[in-house]
Amino acid sequence: MNTRTPDAGSGGVRQRILDTALRDFHESGFHAATVRNIAKHAGCSAANVYNHFENKDEILVEILRSASDEQFTATRNAVRRASPTPPARWAAAVRAHALYTATNSRECLVANTELRYLQEVDRKRVVGSRDAQEHQFVMLAEAGVSSGDFRIDRVHTAVTAVLSMCAGIALWFRADGPLTAVQVADTYAGYALSLVGFPGGSGAAPVDAEAADMLS
Amino acid sequence: MNTRTPDAGSGGVRQRILDTALRDFHESGFHAATVRNIAKHAGCSAANVYNHFENKDEILVEILRSASDEQFTATRNAVRRASPTPPARWAAAVRAHALYTATNSRECLVANTELRYLQEVDRKRVVGSRDAQEHQFVMLAEAGVSSGDFRIDRVHTAVTAVLSMCAGIALWFRADGPLTAVQVADTYAGYALSLVGFPGGSGAAPVDAEAADMLS
Repeated sequence: MNTRTPDAGSGGVRQRILDTALRDFHESGFHAATVRNIAKHAGCSAANVYNHFENKDEILVEILRSASDEQFTATRNAVRRASPTPPARWAAAVRAHALYTATNSRECLVANTELRYLQEVDRKRVVGSRDAQEHQFVMLAEAGVSSGDFRIDRVHTAVTAVLSMCAGIALWFRADGPLTAVQVADTYAGYALSLVGFPGGSGAAPVDAEAADMLS
Repeated sequence: MNTRTPDAGSGGVRQRILDTALRDFHESGFHAATVRNIAKHAGCSAANVYNHFENKDEILVEILRSASDEQFTATRNAVRRASPTPPARWAAAVRAHALYTATNSRECLVANTELRYLQEVDRKRVVGSRDAQEHQFVMLAEAGVSSGDFRIDRVHTAVTAVLSMCAGIALWFRADGPLTAVQVADTYAGYALSLVGFPGGSGAAPVDAEAADMLS
């Protein structure tokens, strides 16, 4: 059926379905969204949607998993590029994570609000990817505690607090607001340094040229 | 109609409708919940629900507004009881706010996920109450900056970060988990002190008897 529009191949239709489904999930929630409407908004038939995805749940899993994987990769790459000290690596990770949230707020918002509606098996497929992200932050925080740079009693609790703080960005950040995504990311990196007891975190967040690169 | 069950007066039915609606909104989301099911779960008729609320939106508004008002009051009272220094007042506010979130996680979760489905007018009725909470925190943070205790460039951004961090508690806190609600509240008060650049916040959060009182 896709051959009717030769320019947009199967991959094009698939991506268009994902994009419109994300918009529908974001605007009216997973429960209210229907495959029929997603198909209509994507300019294809419901049968066409079912060629690519087993059901609505499968579309949500794909959206959430790929967003989480992208965020994980952005964070890992930022850590690799950072100076090899625990505070620099921790700040780079938070900055990249926050920047992804600010620039992909719909995906992050849907992840935070709609994940709970997935069945257990599907939820685990998404949660696995999110757990990997959390583990990454836990290791970075533990390195800071070991080096004596960070002063926190409960590493997991602190990491959860920082990731919650970053997740909140999706709720309020606007591209046309007073702060750019990079400024928000830098500010949050400073907060995360302060939160773990690293002196001079807040108010002294380094504005970093590398953060701007990550937007591209 | 309520006179059929003389023990549970009109107030009793109304509260039962609110309680079951909260459970339904939490479990399946605002869109999927129906007045018919809410009535069934509350053990009354749909007509009975409409005696108390104009529609499903009105029920959600009532749940969210009263939760926000309760949280505001708990926070204000904690601030009044705290030592009159900016760091003590800031910590007391965050502790009370976090404690309310941990002990009323369903209300807070529904507020974070379902608020966006309300119509503009209804949303404003809820948001007004939430704005009052934010304003309370902004004033406390500004007092800390003025006294030289806090070191932050952007008070509003810092307050948003702290409130997002606290909102996240509703997502993960379990009453049967490793930390009690009071321990979480104390830990988060410490994080919030550190975040605004007050020395010795994290890892030195005071365990406070007054926080336990607020649970009652």
